[in-house]
Amino acid sequence: MKAIGFKRSLPIVEQESFIAFETEKPTPHAHDLLVKVQAVSVNPVDYKIRQNSAKEVVLDTPKIIGWDAVGIVEEVGEAVTLFKKGDEVYYAGDITKPGSNADYQLIDERIVGRKPKNLSVAEAAVIPLTGLTAWEILFDRMRISTEKDKGKTLLIIGGAGGMGSIAIQLAKTVAGLTVIATASRPETVEWCKKMGADVVVNHQDLVNGVHNAGFHYVDFIADFVNTGAYWDAMVELIKPQGHIGSITASSEPVALNKLKTKSASFSWEYMYTRSMFQTEDMIQQHHILNQIADLVEAEALQSTLYLTLEGLTVENFKQAHQLLESGKTIGKVAITF
Amino acid sequence: MKAIGFKRSLPIVEQESFIAFETEKPTPHAHDLLVKVQAVSVNPVDYKIRQNSAKEVVLDTPKIIGWDAVGIVEEVGEAVTLFKKGDEVYYAGDITKPGSNADYQLIDERIVGRKPKNLSVAEAAVIPLTGLTAWEILFDRMRISTEKDKGKTLLIIGGAGGMGSIAIQLAKTVAGLTVIATASRPETVEWCKKMGADVVVNHQDLVNGVHNAGFHYVDFIADFVNTGAYWDAMVELIKPQGHIGSITASSEPVALNKLKTKSASFSWEYMYTRSMFQTEDMIQQHHILNQIADLVEAEALQSTLYLTLEGLTVENFKQAHQLLESGKTIGKVAITF
Repeated sequence: MKAIGFKRSLPIVEQESFIAFETEKPTPHAHDLLVKVQAVSVNPVDYKIRQNSAKEVVLDTPKIIGWDAVGIVEEVGEAVTLFKKGDEVYYAGDITKPGSNADYQLIDERIVGRKPKNLSVAEAAVIPLTGLTAWEILFDRMRISTEKDKGKTLLIIGGAGGMGSIAIQLAKTVAGLTVIATASRPETVEWCKKMGADVVVNHQDLVNGVHNAGFHYVDFIADFVNTGAYWDAMVELIKPQGHIGSITASSEPVALNKLKTKSASFSWEYMYTRSMFQTEDMIQQHHILNQIADLVEAEALQSTLYLTLEGLTVENFKQAHQLLESGKTIGKVAITF
Repeated sequence: MKAIGFKRSLPIVEQESFIAFETEKPTPHAHDLLVKVQAVSVNPVDYKIRQNSAKEVVLDTPKIIGWDAVGIVEEVGEAVTLFKKGDEVYYAGDITKPGSNADYQLIDERIVGRKPKNLSVAEAAVIPLTGLTAWEILFDRMRISTEKDKGKTLLIIGGAGGMGSIAIQLAKTVAGLTVIATASRPETVEWCKKMGADVVVNHQDLVNGVHNAGFHYVDFIADFVNTGAYWDAMVELIKPQGHIGSITASSEPVALNKLKTKSASFSWEYMYTRSMFQTEDMIQQHHILNQIADLVEAEALQSTLYLTLEGLTVENFKQAHQLLESGKTIGKVAITF
């Protein structure tokens, strides 16, 4: 089978930052599905791993990354019960295993959902990683209640990126929150509104932006940009007894003390935790993806697709990574095979 | 009325570390109760404030501290609906207002509960601050469910102190958790077991202690000793998707990142948040204190009283602070008037 990978961590503009190669089609065992991949998406985690995982060494075999895919089940392991050959599926994946940038991929059935029927493969491929992450940060980490928390306020830092785009929608349609999203360019402001944000504020003057929009505090904050850079603003804006969630590691230690007087909480969300630690509730990701598929089919959620590239080629992955590395991407980029 | 206070932050052994003085009996307004104080307790927050709040200045009028009291309602403000003259009450208090170390105190009815009928004033006086803090950290901050979380594991760092003593009991009797508490001396180990701890481990080798007791991870951790000092041990012991709560500020910034891979959560608990910010749910403290009174009367909770001193005197407060400053107190100290 054909795959795209890399042997060295190189700047994306370098010839061999990605390479195409042939490798053996894998065989499914236990809970594995063998999926014929039809489309993938690219996320910031991809370029972070490309930039850092082979800095000191040249890998013997190229590393396949990519954690967002749509495809068709071609074969199943002996313990599989949730899917059968021919099923159309979508999933993010497991960071400890090869990614989706290949013709075929093995994936544990417990972290796979059924592809939403009303979406193209490109439209569906952009959903799993960000959808799971947004769902988990809102409902599993900050434990926002779809009943008791209706009408409460959520500030989303990084509204127009892949994460913000799906988080705005889930917060609005599933939880009924009032959503304040950050964006600074006319096109990103417009995109946030299209996703359903009630208010859009500029992240460059975040505290005043939120205050001027009429909110002294917010009940919840989801940070998709930089925990360290926004720490003091989050400390100031979070309501007493409020909850902050983040997916972005801070390069420096954090002045956690500053949240103490407010009895505030902070949660990390890392989409790979359940598969990496094989948690007892790992199958939750199967259920979440299916619930998201239901919402998409009911037209309560829309795809966050912004750009589609066609072909399992080095050029396409280079282009997609370059776009994401710019930090200016709106919504998400898909690559169809 | 007589009160005990201080004008300067002095080492406890100094003559004027506490002074007795006469001041006017206050008048209740709005939601205030005027309470004739019968007994108080001493908490670590007391000596921290005594040591730090008048370091640079000499106060014009002595500062009255103390945030744990039992007494009788003598008069009520015009908006009071929860209590009437003659009621026996217990409460922790509001850090922005004068404390309980005086003949009389004004206290907002929304943070006051009815005194448990089956306890002496000394036995009841040691409960409010630690009871509220333990309740809030377990049920409001870490949001431990009394239904879904039964049988899960809680590690309590600092099992034999005032906080640990009540937290062990609440975790066992209200939440049905398996409780691992830390203690290192024979008498503190015994006290933790008396409070209901299932397992007691030495805090000096915490990770191995917990592992050797048969627990690879714990679902919840409540730290009552030192967030910074136990950070790495907590990071290692917390279960993926687990929750850490603490009441102890860390003097240094914290490597929050270390919890990321596990998608773990961290909550501060500060008993004063609700009254300080006058939160909409401030009356929760009234309800919590009444629920604790119910549990005490049903003999599901026991008082954590260890030592009683008699008399509203400078000597008694000096002795109590000295004991707490040693860091070796077991359970709690009460002072009856």
